[in-house]
Amino acid sequence: MRVGVFDSGIGGLTVVKSILEHNLFEEVIYYGDTARVPYGSKDKNTIIRYSLEALEFFKNFDIDVLIVACNTASAYALDELRANTTIPVVGVIEAGILSLENKLSNNDSNILILGTKATISSKKYEVALKSYGFNNLTSIATGLFVPIVEEQLENTQILDKTFEHYFKDLSHIDAVILGCTHFPLIEEKIGKYLGNAMTIHSGEAIVELLKLKYNCNNKFTKTDIKFFASENPDGLKDVAKKWLGELI
Amino acid sequence: MRVGVFDSGIGGLTVVKSILEHNLFEEVIYYGDTARVPYGSKDKNTIIRYSLEALEFFKNFDIDVLIVACNTASAYALDELRANTTIPVVGVIEAGILSLENKLSNNDSNILILGTKATISSKKYEVALKSYGFNNLTSIATGLFVPIVEEQLENTQILDKTFEHYFKDLSHIDAVILGCTHFPLIEEKIGKYLGNAMTIHSGEAIVELLKLKYNCNNKFTKTDIKFFASENPDGLKDVAKKWLGELI
Repeated sequence: MRVGVFDSGIGGLTVVKSILEHNLFEEVIYYGDTARVPYGSKDKNTIIRYSLEALEFFKNFDIDVLIVACNTASAYALDELRANTTIPVVGVIEAGILSLENKLSNNDSNILILGTKATISSKKYEVALKSYGFNNLTSIATGLFVPIVEEQLENTQILDKTFEHYFKDLSHIDAVILGCTHFPLIEEKIGKYLGNAMTIHSGEAIVELLKLKYNCNNKFTKTDIKFFASENPDGLKDVAKKWLGELI
Repeated sequence: MRVGVFDSGIGGLTVVKSILEHNLFEEVIYYGDTARVPYGSKDKNTIIRYSLEALEFFKNFDIDVLIVACNTASAYALDELRANTTIPVVGVIEAGILSLENKLSNNDSNILILGTKATISSKKYEVALKSYGFNNLTSIATGLFVPIVEEQLENTQILDKTFEHYFKDLSHIDAVILGCTHFPLIEEKIGKYLGNAMTIHSGEAIVELLKLKYNCNNKFTKTDIKFFASENPDGLKDVAKKWLGELI
């Protein structure tokens, strides 16, 4: 089994990490659109166009399933991607919803959705969660989290003040959807700041979805991984070494 | 006289503001590559490619001079732009250097250069300043300033903590080069934090350069301005209304 993982940049490596930890595939083809990152502040048509270009790239490989690791692309381009390929396309938003639904039995739970401006504006998480009967929803576009992670400032007081700013109006939160692939890198800090709220991690959620809906229950002993990027692939590989460590 | 102003996004509007305040042109054509912003984290070849595509766009208009308002594009693509057009191309880096040189008589002054990762890595400011005899130079890539300005967080403690982080090792500073077009929006705060250091503003510097080297000493009573963007031109116009106010 060969899987394609598409992300707007480096963030999707957090999804790759989960896939590798569960040994679900023989080969991972990762493509990050690093020349045009971030998608989170772009408009719908641009996000669709860039996503379809990524799909063209994956047609060079014989992949069995395509994972859209970018929440923003999942929010806007999933239908268009599916209309243009015969292979299964799975996105982190449906995965996150499924994971939350499996974990939360109480429909009165207070759920916080964090994401980029584009993901939050799409209301994809909200609409799906409401269809499952969850109504106590708060959504916040936390635009500064991505640059804080990319600038490696997560252990400074800048992040503390950013939490204070974004979360100042919140009361009790039961579960937080980390609706951007960069956010798992500050998952523990977010959960702790919000009174040890449960966190939904896109990578773990994708693994659950693949097992449940696509019968990906193999346990390969070794996974080969190939990294591609629309610019600076060496930079991507450097981050991969740091984030994925001995998994690659 | 018709001027073209090229920027990676909305930041170049701070340069437009200075041009409008001085009534140097009859018409301004602004092009922001909003679909691919930011340039500051991209690599050299990508920045050159995108800048040449912007030049193609300006060939649809009969402009008399092209201003490269983006420091990152000025750092990497100025030679390539000049090689591909017969009209004068002026960049904010040469303008900033000229402005600083006119204002600082003492070569022992401590000069701080702030910019994106790409601009700082290029060392363009440093090399030029050294050639003018300035040797007490400190450069800092302040990557978080752009998202802070774009997220309108400049009046929060997040910015204070960001100053503390980036400026923690500095002693006395005489002059600060605001080497990114977003930084003028926090110019006063930066200057004040650094003990009322003199600030070099790309827009004001461009006006000085145009007057001095290109004899742009006209005083038109009215300047028409047209805004173009590679995505979401309405978003660009909204920011223009906010930043430029009654000038447009």
